[in-house]
This record gives sequence, C-alpha cells and structure tokens, in this order.
Amino acid sequence: MQDVLGYIDAHRERFVRELVEWVKIPSISALPAHAPDMLRNAEHLCAALAALGADRAEVLTTRGHPAVFASFDHAPGKPTLLVYGHHDVQPIDPLGEWVSPPFEPAVRDGRLYGRGVVDDKGQVWIHLKAIEAFLRGGGGKLPINLKLIVEGEEEVGSEHLGDVMREHEELLRADYVCVSDTAMFGRGIPSLCVGLRGLAYFEVHVSGPSGDVHSGSFGGGIANPANALARILARLHDDDGHVTIPGFYDRVRVLTQPEKDEIASLPHDDAAWLAMSGARAAVGEAGFSTLERIWCRPTLDVCGLTSGFQGEGAKTIIPATASAKVSCRLVPDQTPDEIGRLLAEHVMRLAPPGVKVEVVTLHGGMPYLAPTSHPVFEVARRAFSKAFGGKPTVFIREGGSIPFVRTIADATGKPCLLMGFGQPDENAHAPNEWLDLENFHLGIKSAAHLYDELAKMVTP
Amino acid sequence: MQDVLGYIDAHRERFVRELVEWVKIPSISALPAHAPDMLRNAEHLCAALAALGADRAEVLTTRGHPAVFASFDHAPGKPTLLVYGHHDVQPIDPLGEWVSPPFEPAVRDGRLYGRGVVDDKGQVWIHLKAIEAFLRGGGGKLPINLKLIVEGEEEVGSEHLGDVMREHEELLRADYVCVSDTAMFGRGIPSLCVGLRGLAYFEVHVSGPSGDVHSGSFGGGIANPANALARILARLHDDDGHVTIPGFYDRVRVLTQPEKDEIASLPHDDAAWLAMSGARAAVGEAGFSTLERIWCRPTLDVCGLTSGFQGEGAKTIIPATASAKVSCRLVPDQTPDEIGRLLAEHVMRLAPPGVKVEVVTLHGGMPYLAPTSHPVFEVARRAFSKAFGGKPTVFIREGGSIPFVRTIADATGKPCLLMGFGQPDENAHAPNEWLDLENFHLGIKSAAHLYDELAKMVTP
Repeated sequence: MQDVLGYIDAHRERFVRELVEWVKIPSISALPAHAPDMLRNAEHLCAALAALGADRAEVLTTRGHPAVFASFDHAPGKPTLLVYGHHDVQPIDPLGEWVSPPFEPAVRDGRLYGRGVVDDKGQVWIHLKAIEAFLRGGGGKLPINLKLIVEGEEEVGSEHLGDVMREHEELLRADYVCVSDTAMFGRGIPSLCVGLRGLAYFEVHVSGPSGDVHSGSFGGGIANPANALARILARLHDDDGHVTIPGFYDRVRVLTQPEKDEIASLPHDDAAWLAMSGARAAVGEAGFSTLERIWCRPTLDVCGLTSGFQGEGAKTIIPATASAKVSCRLVPDQTPDEIGRLLAEHVMRLAPPGVKVEVVTLHGGMPYLAPTSHPVFEVARRAFSKAFGGKPTVFIREGGSIPFVRTIADATGKPCLLMGFGQPDENAHAPNEWLDLENFHLGIKSAAHLYDELAKMVTP
Repeated sequence: MQDVLGYIDAHRERFVRELVEWVKIPSISALPAHAPDMLRNAEHLCAALAALGADRAEVLTTRGHPAVFASFDHAPGKPTLLVYGHHDVQPIDPLGEWVSPPFEPAVRDGRLYGRGVVDDKGQVWIHLKAIEAFLRGGGGKLPINLKLIVEGEEEVGSEHLGDVMREHEELLRADYVCVSDTAMFGRGIPSLCVGLRGLAYFEVHVSGPSGDVHSGSFGGGIANPANALARILARLHDDDGHVTIPGFYDRVRVLTQPEKDEIASLPHDDAAWLAMSGARAAVGEAGFSTLERIWCRPTLDVCGLTSGFQGEGAKTIIPATASAKVSCRLVPDQTPDEIGRLLAEHVMRLAPPGVKVEVVTLHGGMPYLAPTSHPVFEVARRAFSKAFGGKPTVFIREGGSIPFVRTIADATGKPCLLMGFGQPDENAHAPNEWLDLENFHLGIKSAAHLYDELAKMVTP
C-alpha cells in the first residue's frame, strides 16, 4: 500500500488535469442536443478504462443514453466490488452566474470549478485513479475484482438503469456495491451514508362550482374549494408538527439510543445549515433534533398550491377548483403504497361538506436503510478513516431519496456502500459547481484503502 | 296614465326594433379598438334623447369613454328624478358559444339575444320609451323633471364616474335617483334592491426559504410556507362557518325579525340557485338561510392560491413563498379599513414560527343599505307593482358590490332606487346574453308608473 499511496501523491496534479479533459465534454443528459456529447463522453471514459488494461471495457447502449461498463478480474477467490457512478451532468443555466465557463474547468483556491466536477465525474475518476495506482504504482494488479457501471441518465431519473441491471445481471454480479455520488458530512469528515428517505407524492384536488363564480352572488352560500383545501391541509399536522394521519407513524422505526447518540455527536450547526436554505428558523416535529427530523422522521410537505385567480390585483371569485401537490418523505419501514392509502382515507375524512375531494398518487419510492451490522461497513469505515488521517468515519443519512440506490440494492441484493466524496455546499446542481481538490486526492486514497481492506475480507 | 299605457302597448314591437338598432353598435369599453364605437354609441343615444325633445342632451367627455346626459325640465315644483344607466357592454368572448352573433340581435322564444340587451342598453331604453309614452302618448309632457346620466365605463369599473358627478354637480342635482342596472328576484317578481355588500380584498404572503429548496434535504427541518398558509387560512373560520377574526362581527347589523320574515317570504329555491353555480350543496354560516348568508352576512373567501410547483407531475420542493387572494364581503356597518386592520392583526397572530407573513390590502368598497323608511320606497313599490299586474314588489339585496351605487348615493346624498328589470339568469356577462321581452315591456310601464307616482309626492 505504501507504493500505491506514494503513486497517488506523486501524480496528484496529473490526475486533476485528466479530470479536466473529461469535464470539458458537455454531457448534459437532459438536453437532446447533447446526445452526441453523451456518446463521446461515454467513449472517453471507456477508452480511459481500456487504457488501464481492463479485462473488459465497453459502452452499453440503452434505450436512452449509453452506460459504460468495465471489469478487472485480477483476484480470483477475492471479493468482487461493483462501483456505481454516472457520467451525465446537470444543465448549466443560468449560465450568467458562472464565474468561469462550466465546460472550461478552472482551478481557484484549491477548488476545481466546472459542471460535473463533483457530480459525478470527479467521483468516478477517483476510482479510475485508485485502480491506476494499484496497476502502475503497486504490484501491477488489483487486490480485489472490480467492476464499474457508469450510467448516463442519473440526472434525468435513471430511467433505463433497471433495464441495464436486468439485461447484464451476470456481468454486474458482485459481492459489494460502492456508490460514489453523495456528499461527506462536511469538509474532512469521512462519511458513509447509510439511510435515505423514501417518497410518496400526491395531488389533492378539491372541486366546487362548475366554474369560477362571483364571490358576491355566491359567497357565504356555497363551499369554497380553496378554503376547503386549506382546511384539509392544515389538519394534516397538529400544533407540535406531528402528522395527524392515523397509522402514519405505525411502521416508523424508532431511533435507538446509539443511533441518536451518533447523530448527536456530529458537528452539526443549525445556523450554518439554515444559511444554505435562507430559512428563518429550524422548526419541525417536537421532540427531535434537526438532523433527526430531516434524516429519520417522515414528513408531509406541500410542494405547490394552485387555485383560482393568480394574476395581479383583485378578482372576486369563488374558484371552481383548488389543488395541492403534497410530498411525504418516508422512513423505514413505511411504504409509499400504505402511506398513500392512509393519506387518501384521511383526506376524505377531512373533506368538508359541499365540495368534491380526490387524491391522486403520482409516484413513490421506498426508503433505504443500509444493513450496517454487516462487517463490510466496518471495513469501509476503517478504509475511509485511514485516508483521512485517522479521522473517524461517521454514519450519516440523507433526507432526500436517491432512487438508483434502491434500484442497485434491490437488483444486486448486496450491501451498498454510499461512499461519497462531495461536500454539501459544492453547488452540485447549481452554477459554479466545484470539487475540493483535497477531497479528490484523499478520495483516491480512500478508494485504494477500500479495495485493500476488502481484499482482507473473506469472500462471502 | 291610460293613454300613456296604451301608447306603450301600441308601440311594443317598434320599441324592440329600436333597441335592436342600438345593440348593433359594439360598445365594448374594455377593448381600446372599440373606442370609436363607444363614441358612436353615445351619439346614437344622445340623438335619440334629442329627438324626444330633451331640453338638454349632450355627450359628456371624460378622460375615458364618454357619458351621455339629458334633461327634461317639464314640471316646475315637482320632484326631479335622476336616472342612471350605462351604454357600454361586456366583451363577447368566447365568441364560439354564442348561438347568434352578439351584435346581430335576434328574437327567439320571447327573448332578445345580443350583447348588452339587458346590461344595460335594454334598461336604459326602458326609460327612453317611458318618456316617449308621456310626450307622444300622454299629455305631451312629463309629470316630473327627469335627468338621465348614462355612463360609458360601468363594465370597466366606472373609473371616471366620480369625476363626472363632481364636474357636473349642478347639472345632476335631483331629489331621487333611479338606477336601472340590476335584476329582479325572478321572472314576474317586481323587485327593489335595497342592500349591497361591500368588499375588502387582501393578499396574504408567506415566505420561508430564500428560494425553493429540496424537500428531501430540508423537509421536516424548516417551516413550509405553503403548509403555513393553509394553517393560517384554515383558522380564519370555525367549524360552524363563522369567521374567527376578533371583532369581525362587531359592527354587523343584526337582521330584524321583519327583515328576516321578508327574506323568508321570497320564493327562493336552494336547488335552482345552486344550479346556477354548479355547486354541490348550499353550505355556509350556521344559523342563517342561504339568502341571509349571501345578502346580509359578511364572508371571507379565498379567491386564489399560488405556491411552488404548479406544473404537471411531481417536483419535490419546499416552496420559497405561498400567497392567497382573500376577499371579504362586508355588510353594514362594517368598513373595509377596519376589517382590513382586524384581518391583518389576526393573520399575524396565526403566523406559525419560521415564516414571514405579510398582509397587503388591495382595495375595498363600503356596503350599502338603502334608507327604506323614506316614503319614496313605498312610492316605488306601488309603481312597480302596478306595472306587474298588482304583484307585490319585494325588497331584495345583492350579495355583490356595485361601486357606482355608492358613488352616486354619496355624490347626490339622495335616496337611490335600484329598480332593475333584468333576471338573474340572463347571462349578463356571458355568451348568449338575453332580455325577457315581457320584462322589457313591463319595465317601460314600471318606469312610467314611477314617474307618475313620484309626481304625486311633495317635492322634498
């Protein structure tokens, strides 16, 4: 390992220059005009993997954008790790807010700026360079068997990832999965993400008169759908911020004291966290800390309201309809189906007389909790900490939902290590996306340590 | 009077043909392209008044569309009646829904179809033809002094009516005012409108994060402006439909038993009334009938809701802002200023922690209640009933607000007779506006009886 780590130190600058070349390709999956760039981008990555001497390196076509697969079958009898990443990037607008052009990467103050530098090209490149360090700086081969699947549609919903996983089931078979597309808890804090919230998304539609009617002629005499909607939505929480839907919390796993202690031990600062949103105060369900609320507690948020007159000035109507977009973030072991049923039943109970109420389920996703009692999590913790100078690796969660993690976890049935090297403030989906180059460097070492530590495990 | 009434019977068909000619002029005040039509329309009316032998007949220019003034000074020592009407009409879209073209009036089943036939050209023409009946069918002169002011901006808010009233204060001086621009309670029921609700219109703005933020990253940890808005709006009513704003009802005049009895005696049918709106049920403040609710009780209706994501599908955000348009209909002796203050104070009290709440007052209008103890109301009742075969004239109210009534009532300081000949279902602001030709005929007789009865009063 000393040779491997020394190689990583020695080639630090070149690794960044190589990443810069890849970032120059504008692989925006959301924009059809960039379809040729998507293919060029995949081929660039595939060529780099082939140049490393991969046993197999190929562009996998899908019904959408291509994915890239590579395998290094160097260690018979040793565990096989499947690394997931994506080579597509977010759109760049508003372009005017970028300090330097998004596809002309620039280094300033130890940061590399450019679209995709952290989400996710930099994190994919970390694995390529860790592999290179073993092959050129270490003993010429990897201590484990490595597979990479780098999709091209993560930023547009991973629509065809499930197909890829099914069609290439044999190819993608592995003992463990490593996803490098998330963030660390903060700068210099090695972090494994072990939980993701699920999602259940609804529309609530309330209808009253057959068209908008005059609020003078009818006001006071018929039910107002907008007032009715407000009444329904307001009654979905009590004064302490708990969701009032009967049964909503029945399947929620109560945090254990060790889990609560681990969360409490994290260097979280409400003020700094609030500053990222511009919100005025950290408020939420009584009895829980902010991190517990956003990671481990289910929510019910109104994402949109639409009713009646929305223009300038006054229009005196009783609107014909009022509707709300509502998202519930779910935690283990809630399921979108059950929560959808409970919410719909409760909304119908809350419907006041004189209006018609409908609940439409749009989509949902299961929450995810890693099987952290599996020994591979301790192995990953150790590897990560070694790269970061002995700093303890923390288990964190994400309040959001990352559907492809479920897709991969379900498709492989294997423990999934969410070992991310980003930072929460790196503007992943905004102008001036940046990558902390120290994290990039230590990320390469972390990946190398992970491979090394996994090699010491008994093959499952 | 027999000669006058006989003349009205004898010329019934011609009166309709004349009205048709006027309705052909597309006097849409809302559309700048029709400005020349507005002038032509005013001149058409002015010429008709001059042809009747008015002592004065002129087009009054304003900073907007022109008004028409005429006076008949036939009866020294007798009361002077000022008749108000308007010569502008509503726009015609959606044009495709008209059975016959809006400006090619057509008679079908005893109804005249066309834009403006009832609102308000037909009702203005009623007075012209009543005048004609006295001058050509009766003794050659009117039994009272008559003035007409017919404005051209009623459908666009009567913006310059106040100016006209001020500039021509001397000209418009009268003992009584008759406004013929409202509807009867139902077919064949002579009705005087004696009350109008006022209006106070607000926007409630709730803001949270500085921009829309991810409902996964922040959901549960910060206040959601849309949920907060729903909570505020929901708490503005109790379960019985009463408005909860402290002091809201303090100045509301309690209906007297005779007033309640008069309202209860009207042939109101909830089912037929509901059918006009397409609403499912007559619901509202506990303890009041539908007519009491829409005529005599104040309301608080949400007219519009806007927040966050309103497109197709799902977007998982906590919106930065949420806002509502809110209208309160007011009844005597509530005032928009006081209600605005009370509402704003209460909304601020209801604001949950973590969001910023603002209340913006858009505009307001005073409620109106006619001084029905004045003897002129009994005179008008009698005149109206005579024309309608002895049917008793009912006192009704309107749930809506008609600002020009307050403008005229305040400017003249005289009792204002809202003697309308429309019907509630005549599509006044919709496609296929129609006028019941029997009402038109009896309306002319009602106006004639009104002039005759007023002549018997002592000049105030």
